[in-house]
Amino acid sequence: MKMKRPLILVSNDDSVNAKGIKELINFVRPFGDVVVVAPDFHQSGMGCALSASVPIHYREVHKEEGLVIYACSGTPVDCIKLAKNEILKGLPDLIVSGINHGDNSAVNAHYSGTMGAAIEGCISGVPSIAFSLCDHAEDANFTPLKEIIQQLVKLVLAEGLPQWTCLNVNFPFEPDYKGIKVCEQAMGRWVNELDPCPRLGDPNYFWLSGNFQADDPNNEKSDFWALQNGYVAITPISVDVTSYNYIETLNELLNTKE
Amino acid sequence: MKMKRPLILVSNDDSVNAKGIKELINFVRPFGDVVVVAPDFHQSGMGCALSASVPIHYREVHKEEGLVIYACSGTPVDCIKLAKNEILKGLPDLIVSGINHGDNSAVNAHYSGTMGAAIEGCISGVPSIAFSLCDHAEDANFTPLKEIIQQLVKLVLAEGLPQWTCLNVNFPFEPDYKGIKVCEQAMGRWVNELDPCPRLGDPNYFWLSGNFQADDPNNEKSDFWALQNGYVAITPISVDVTSYNYIETLNELLNTKE
Repeated sequence: MKMKRPLILVSNDDSVNAKGIKELINFVRPFGDVVVVAPDFHQSGMGCALSASVPIHYREVHKEEGLVIYACSGTPVDCIKLAKNEILKGLPDLIVSGINHGDNSAVNAHYSGTMGAAIEGCISGVPSIAFSLCDHAEDANFTPLKEIIQQLVKLVLAEGLPQWTCLNVNFPFEPDYKGIKVCEQAMGRWVNELDPCPRLGDPNYFWLSGNFQADDPNNEKSDFWALQNGYVAITPISVDVTSYNYIETLNELLNTKE
Repeated sequence: MKMKRPLILVSNDDSVNAKGIKELINFVRPFGDVVVVAPDFHQSGMGCALSASVPIHYREVHKEEGLVIYACSGTPVDCIKLAKNEILKGLPDLIVSGINHGDNSAVNAHYSGTMGAAIEGCISGVPSIAFSLCDHAEDANFTPLKEIIQQLVKLVLAEGLPQWTCLNVNFPFEPDYKGIKVCEQAMGRWVNELDPCPRLGDPNYFWLSGNFQADDPNNEKSDFWALQNGYVAITPISVDVTSYNYIETLNELLNTKE
């Protein structure tokens, strides 16, 4: 009797044509049948955005034994919604997103379309992992990531993930990894975020830009520190974003305590 | 000696022309000087999306004593980044976002551009509140929200909010509120999310649509339950989305425990 192979859904935010997703597809194919639903165009920085005001469209762009690739006009979240509602008409066993060309650690998890796909997968009840490499280059070298990505895919296919938890996995720029660290999200913010690009005499045009400033760059528990110090950072991410610690205080302030 | 009035930054995702933001501006003006930086066009469902691939632009559209309004071409997060980096060249004392035409409770917090502005405010270190009314109508009646919004604005101006926590405040459709409940984010997901809208014989076009399905609709601690039962739901939201509960288990699974 032949065992049914796991069904692995792949998405990203750099588009279906990015090198990172092609490498990810190759890395995960040994572990299951692969369906790719990814944006037909750059959707970087789209976070959990969805298409509320325009229709979304998809088309098949490649098909072979064990692999079908669809390009979708929408955001990463749209891609996951299309896949589960229409293309698969059900849930895959695993969702992997990426490999992103660029860092998605720390508060970048909020802005990242790569993470958006993983969060949508997690909300849907599917174990989901986002992979990112701290290298923006179009031709970045993803080969050194293969072994750890395959280890994590095997682990999550076997063990699953807790409900409402997905993984944000970031690889440092330099490939001689010191090891893997399970991390907390580094807190901090971007600064100097606007680069002027005046147009026709109007100075009020800007590119988003800037640098990330960690509040505590020496916090060895943080993904920021791990990446700065040569470790692969795995940050487990919660889709339940309730700030439980503040509930009691807020009830007291509002006199709504029962 | 005249006390300096607080500086209140207002944004939303329904655009600078929406009734909800006009009402919110009126509700908060008694408490400070108001600067509005809001999208010039609908940015619903944009979550924490930012403009990574196109420049953003802003222009002044209204000015009077104690109130300046700017329209911005970008997302709600872009609006906050423009405000702090360029327009205010510093941080306001409070950020309020909304009033959204439609429900942003439960997992909708991830998709909501109204919440995106509040999360960006919170990351920036500013006490931030998102307000939403469970009524999509363009001419929804926001008057019944005034008293509670003013109560919350006064409270947060006086007490602040904990670092990395912002508020997601949702008002039920019916205005005879039973009271205020401090809530947990309801867990669940949207189902039946695609409405076909075929074009030129191609069936692969869809509008996002659907219904929210709460996992436990009887969970009286959840914002979903509160809204269904006539309460104003205040869900404190954490910008630190680390899933702390899973760190130890993941370390054991990966043999990365120290």
